[in-house]
Amino acid sequence: MSNVKEILGNYSSDIIKTIEDELSVITPNNLQEASIYLTKAGGKMLRPALAVLTSEAVGGNKENAFKAGAAIELIHTFSLIHDDIMDDDDMRRGMPSVHKVWGEDVAILAGDTLFSKSFEIILSSNPEDIDPSQINKALATVADACVKICEGQALDMGFEDRYDVTEDEYMEMIFKKTGALIAGATKVGAIMGGASQDVVDAMYEYGRLIGLAFQIQDDYLDLASDEETLGKPIGSDIVKGKMTIIAINALSASEGSNYDDLLEILKKDDNSQEDIDLAIELFNKYGAIENARTLALESVDKAKEVLEILPDSSSKQALADIADFVLERHS
Amino acid sequence: MSNVKEILGNYSSDIIKTIEDELSVITPNNLQEASIYLTKAGGKMLRPALAVLTSEAVGGNKENAFKAGAAIELIHTFSLIHDDIMDDDDMRRGMPSVHKVWGEDVAILAGDTLFSKSFEIILSSNPEDIDPSQINKALATVADACVKICEGQALDMGFEDRYDVTEDEYMEMIFKKTGALIAGATKVGAIMGGASQDVVDAMYEYGRLIGLAFQIQDDYLDLASDEETLGKPIGSDIVKGKMTIIAINALSASEGSNYDDLLEILKKDDNSQEDIDLAIELFNKYGAIENARTLALESVDKAKEVLEILPDSSSKQALADIADFVLERHS
Repeated sequence: MSNVKEILGNYSSDIIKTIEDELSVITPNNLQEASIYLTKAGGKMLRPALAVLTSEAVGGNKENAFKAGAAIELIHTFSLIHDDIMDDDDMRRGMPSVHKVWGEDVAILAGDTLFSKSFEIILSSNPEDIDPSQINKALATVADACVKICEGQALDMGFEDRYDVTEDEYMEMIFKKTGALIAGATKVGAIMGGASQDVVDAMYEYGRLIGLAFQIQDDYLDLASDEETLGKPIGSDIVKGKMTIIAINALSASEGSNYDDLLEILKKDDNSQEDIDLAIELFNKYGAIENARTLALESVDKAKEVLEILPDSSSKQALADIADFVLERHS
Repeated sequence: MSNVKEILGNYSSDIIKTIEDELSVITPNNLQEASIYLTKAGGKMLRPALAVLTSEAVGGNKENAFKAGAAIELIHTFSLIHDDIMDDDDMRRGMPSVHKVWGEDVAILAGDTLFSKSFEIILSSNPEDIDPSQINKALATVADACVKICEGQALDMGFEDRYDVTEDEYMEMIFKKTGALIAGATKVGAIMGGASQDVVDAMYEYGRLIGLAFQIQDDYLDLASDEETLGKPIGSDIVKGKMTIIAINALSASEGSNYDDLLEILKKDDNSQEDIDLAIELFNKYGAIENARTLALESVDKAKEVLEILPDSSSKQALADIADFVLERHS
């Protein structure tokens, strides 16, 4: 795992530099500062590293790889800024969120600006290094991921106060909200690296699978981590009544038996520790935690199988390590 | 002028159809409805008509022309939705604004979705009809216009409570906020129509010039139209203390004389009709209204000269008519 953190760290400064160069021309100052703020705050850099590693793994050059990574990170940052406005989240990356510092208006504009800049970064590729039709494909991938992020966020908002969300609905939502950009990262990396269509498709599938595992792991950690590591209380999804894959499966499996007890806890706003413990007990009783864990493990295994289309390289190995890392992380 | 309204109306249904086809796949329903709402509400369709006419004037095919027009209209709509949130405007196109109907969260997402869809429309061009490098150029033009719109909006917000805005600052702001997308429309139309680089550049300049005239006419109409035609009281910019080109020039020309009187009126929040009349008198005394009118007229004349690079056609004539229309309109 430390290996993966090292890998992500390795690319961080080049990605940040590519982004800063692109954003340094924005005026006025407050818009530039609001646009660059979260990048400077330092994220995990998982998505851009995936784009860069995929690009390298298919034999692409460094400059194109960093453009792919920077473009994906800007889309991620844009969606965080707009999400924080929608969710009224005060903090992001350990700092006050963009709309808390510059106000909602500038935060909306900063998100919109990053969105445009993501396209401009890819469009600034050296035409000697990449065919224009490949640039079109990369941009189509970014645009598609953006539409899906919006759809996923809208679906997620529509799940609020609904307790009959099906597993299929949940899967569609998390793919769009989280998986699409991770899959977009590896696909854009492959395209910018000049990969053939079957490799591009495989890299999208790899990204989709680890994105799925990533989200399920999030649901799992809410129950299985500890408060200090996670940075929030265990069981907070239960308190919020959030329809995670675990809650959905447990509700479905407990019909005719403990369904009403579980539903009552999920609907309640002021759960006691006893409520939380009982919900976790029921999740376990109906095998919902184990099932989620199995689904995540299978996704990671499939993701690593998909990688076999690539020639051996340290980048390919790093992509396999990242797939494992998704389930090894504790926060 | 009725001729121009007819021209704009001619393209309206094809543009709306292109947009509706593109947006019909968005899920969930509320996001799709919020995204398509303002298009159905019916706008002037000036920007998309400019794109289509330019594309036709350079010999482009119909399908590419409508894609250019639809993409530009989506960017315009996206910016209106986000602007209405920022300005807390309740009404748009005679109907409640998007955030008033679906809430701010869905409105932010609808804007973001339209943004992505604008790129997707251009990317969906038939590769037999247009070279991939031309598609890249069209997308770069759209992305550049989007960055400028955000910068222009941020500049405009920065002008609030400032009474020392210079003419250069004002010119930069209105170009970015309004002119860039009009210039982008004619440039994208030229690119999608397959024009040579010098024609593309000329069409950008034409768009920039009529965009400038358009904005100055807005400032002029606030003083010279009548309340019924304009749909708001005459002199409302004075009441708001807005730094229009007319106010900026009058302040600058009245230094050492009526400067303080004018500034006091602009700073006041509760102007009487007498205040408004005095401000207009001072605007006239220092030739600020005439100067603005002259600048707008010169811009339109230059715009029509620029059109001379095009071969004669009904589309070229329509572009010249639109340039005149910009200053003939009363609302």
